[in-house]
Amino acid sequence: MAAVKLNVLHWHLTEDQGFRVESKKFPKLHTLGSDGLFYTQDEVREIIAYARDRGIRVMPEFDIPGHSTSWLVSYPELGSAPGPYKIERGAGIFEPALDPTREQTYKFLDSFLGEMAALFPDAYMHLGGDENEGKQWDRNPQIQAFMKEKGIKDNHALQAYFNQRVLKILQKHHKKMIGWEEILHPDLPKDAVIHSWRGPASLAEAAKRGYNGILSAGYYIDLIFPASQHYLADPIPRDTTLTPEEAKHILGGEATMWGEWVSPETIDSRIWPRTAAIAERLWSPRNVTDISDMYRRLSVISRQLEELGLTHEKNYGMLLRRLAATENTIPLRTLASIIEPVKEYHRYQMRPQTMLSPLTGLVDAARPDSETARQFVSDVDAFLSDAPRFALNRPNLERTLAEWQNASRALGPMVDRSPALQEARPLVNNLSAIAEAGLEATSYLTAGSAATTQWRDTQLARLNEAAKPNAALEFVVITSVRKLVIAAAELPQLRSTTPVEWNNRVTTMASPPPPATKP
Amino acid sequence: MAAVKLNVLHWHLTEDQGFRVESKKFPKLHTLGSDGLFYTQDEVREIIAYARDRGIRVMPEFDIPGHSTSWLVSYPELGSAPGPYKIERGAGIFEPALDPTREQTYKFLDSFLGEMAALFPDAYMHLGGDENEGKQWDRNPQIQAFMKEKGIKDNHALQAYFNQRVLKILQKHHKKMIGWEEILHPDLPKDAVIHSWRGPASLAEAAKRGYNGILSAGYYIDLIFPASQHYLADPIPRDTTLTPEEAKHILGGEATMWGEWVSPETIDSRIWPRTAAIAERLWSPRNVTDISDMYRRLSVISRQLEELGLTHEKNYGMLLRRLAATENTIPLRTLASIIEPVKEYHRYQMRPQTMLSPLTGLVDAARPDSETARQFVSDVDAFLSDAPRFALNRPNLERTLAEWQNASRALGPMVDRSPALQEARPLVNNLSAIAEAGLEATSYLTAGSAATTQWRDTQLARLNEAAKPNAALEFVVITSVRKLVIAAAELPQLRSTTPVEWNNRVTTMASPPPPATKP
Repeated sequence: MAAVKLNVLHWHLTEDQGFRVESKKFPKLHTLGSDGLFYTQDEVREIIAYARDRGIRVMPEFDIPGHSTSWLVSYPELGSAPGPYKIERGAGIFEPALDPTREQTYKFLDSFLGEMAALFPDAYMHLGGDENEGKQWDRNPQIQAFMKEKGIKDNHALQAYFNQRVLKILQKHHKKMIGWEEILHPDLPKDAVIHSWRGPASLAEAAKRGYNGILSAGYYIDLIFPASQHYLADPIPRDTTLTPEEAKHILGGEATMWGEWVSPETIDSRIWPRTAAIAERLWSPRNVTDISDMYRRLSVISRQLEELGLTHEKNYGMLLRRLAATENTIPLRTLASIIEPVKEYHRYQMRPQTMLSPLTGLVDAARPDSETARQFVSDVDAFLSDAPRFALNRPNLERTLAEWQNASRALGPMVDRSPALQEARPLVNNLSAIAEAGLEATSYLTAGSAATTQWRDTQLARLNEAAKPNAALEFVVITSVRKLVIAAAELPQLRSTTPVEWNNRVTTMASPPPPATKP
Repeated sequence: MAAVKLNVLHWHLTEDQGFRVESKKFPKLHTLGSDGLFYTQDEVREIIAYARDRGIRVMPEFDIPGHSTSWLVSYPELGSAPGPYKIERGAGIFEPALDPTREQTYKFLDSFLGEMAALFPDAYMHLGGDENEGKQWDRNPQIQAFMKEKGIKDNHALQAYFNQRVLKILQKHHKKMIGWEEILHPDLPKDAVIHSWRGPASLAEAAKRGYNGILSAGYYIDLIFPASQHYLADPIPRDTTLTPEEAKHILGGEATMWGEWVSPETIDSRIWPRTAAIAERLWSPRNVTDISDMYRRLSVISRQLEELGLTHEKNYGMLLRRLAATENTIPLRTLASIIEPVKEYHRYQMRPQTMLSPLTGLVDAARPDSETARQFVSDVDAFLSDAPRFALNRPNLERTLAEWQNASRALGPMVDRSPALQEARPLVNNLSAIAEAGLEATSYLTAGSAATTQWRDTQLARLNEAAKPNAALEFVVITSVRKLVIAAAELPQLRSTTPVEWNNRVTTMASPPPPATKP
């Protein structure tokens, strides 16, 4: 973090799936709520001191009233439904929430947060507040009666009531409150800070209403989007409607890494090097947006980060060796270099796992931002822009496509040998189809001989098939291969148009991808 | 160690270049003698406990009377020549030695070794004793007078006198003595153990004279010999002259790793996976000698060792990325896969460094036992054995040679960009020559058209040039390429002989390599 000038570690310490900090006042919280995987207070102090020596603040988060299953394992009486509770092993949004209507809840929080306020010297404390759908509240007659009695009209208002009570506790312990954007409510005092995760609109709205805010929407690095996308997300975008005075309420941004799909082996590759691009965004004027120069520098920074001990490159090699069950991972590396994990949280549906599942699949090795893929996209564009000669970048293009073809051949036996690679078999077949389509198209174009529409449609159908995710992985070069295929069939049109127009036409036909072939 | 069933850690704690263990009785030893790089007694206890939990004994070595410069930095009065002494920064054999004629020396050792005897619970203590050439003794009149007075006829006898004195100290502290083979002397008591490092002959001699012994000759893993060589070294070789009774004196063997040319980044690749082959040797019957099966299993063990956290593969990638200054290290990896560091201690002369020099060169990345090289050697043999058809393994052979050619082309610009790779330029040129010779020879052979002797001699001259080490690295495929070249020119002889005879003839002509072309 210090190497890229990030200066606040927001440490999300409690979740449905684990209570990760030692409490001396309520030791059952971490002993029963963590599978033994928690930070002792000594370790917390060590981390805070280590961070402080590097100019980094440590802000803890205790996520309430939702996301609190692990608290309720040992203190079910704090919940809004009767227990018993178990540590959650799935990922998603769950019902358990603290009961905001009982004084006991606030007594407990006063004591616990007081202990944490003494442990964490930072001025701020993050209390979460996100994704509480209030289902337990809806079903609890006592809570419903409380709301009626107090004139609290809905769950959002009930959470606002909860926040006001908790804010007073924090003030007593001399801490300022931060919460996820759901805490925004007319009754929320102005000294709370809004942490926006769903989009910049809520951040702008908060700023207009006089709240300070932080942007995380756009910086969710666990979603496996490319660095370029994060790099272009600005906490105060070009089209902002904020006045300069309002804009001062935007404190900055935060890269957000969640832990469902990471292990000690993979976490570095999920955070780095992309977070360096986010750090540069947050320290740069809005008009610094040169993506290709960002990638050029990111590659250098990535190796500097490796020198500092990060394992995003080292463990990539290790994961591939384990999957390939051989030291010669070149064919697998070739495949991995043009596939990426599915974006957003689609992995949940496509490759279901629990929190106890191993994270050792090809999807865990694969990473976004492949330089090979970027180079291929750029080679195809250069090659097609050189119509009707089709000489520019042709050797690169042909070499790359031939490498894919060779890799797909070598991968067949490798998949046969490796149980862990079984799920990659469709990807290997698709790699072969992609390489063949690309090579044949290139060959048509360089020979100046048009492909038939029948050939084109066959190839496009295969590419559409290859575009579907497998093993929660997807190819990132399909659009460019599609361009080559379409261009090969569009060769005759070159006679009646300028190369630039022709190229634009091909590009338009090739992207966005045609809709899925559902009936 | 536990993973491959090694059960004694021999821990060489003192050397000319550093005194690596904390002494509470003589703290100047480690503070002035170590640059601050020493193990505290708490750390020592932690290591001993960690080892014990895994069934591993920890035997410390305090190397005396030679190899003791770092002791004399703080206690020059123990030396055989006046001080002051400085921590040694070079590698090799140095003159400083403890003075065996002064009672103060034994008083000091009694106190220090007593402290260490309490720290290390193992029954044995290793006192070194190696490589003391006695030059300080020769020049010290007081020592010469002492020898004359006591009737000690030479330095070897003086060291034996020293050993007898020290052995009594160890006995007082209830330890048994081990020393390097130089301690062997008629006056040496029989309960000392002989540690053989120069060859199995001294071990056998010791056993015949009734001493227990350990073999390290043959297992010097810092010399960068291939695993196959270590695997075939047996503590009790097939041609042993020992009787079964005498053979019982051979306690086993020890893989010996010295620290001059390793850093935390490289040490794992110098120890592993080769030491697994040595461990198997030491636990196996003498007739288990199948090299190719050993390599097959070593590759599996290597990945298992990586799973346990060793960095011999991970850091290889990192070192290559650092040298290449890019993530795409394939061409450099191709070169590195067929070169090895020079053997023995030739690196000292070829690429002089001090103990303070960085260990980040190509020679530090390169490793022995390349699978690529073994495969190439085997492909060439199969291809030539298939005379006059020359079809067997030909695709493999041609693909490998073409890869070398491609790599040599890609490496030119890479070397231009990387200051750290400048020294590798001759290797890149030689890689190109090797690939060209191999490809042309293969082409002659498959076409059945004989190469001229002029072509052969030109190629052999280039291969002889390529066989010379550069940057302390040498190619390990030259002999096989030489075979191809000679075979291409020997094609006409195939008509007048059987393929097997022809193949033998080619092999004989190609190896051993012709002498260097000195006038």
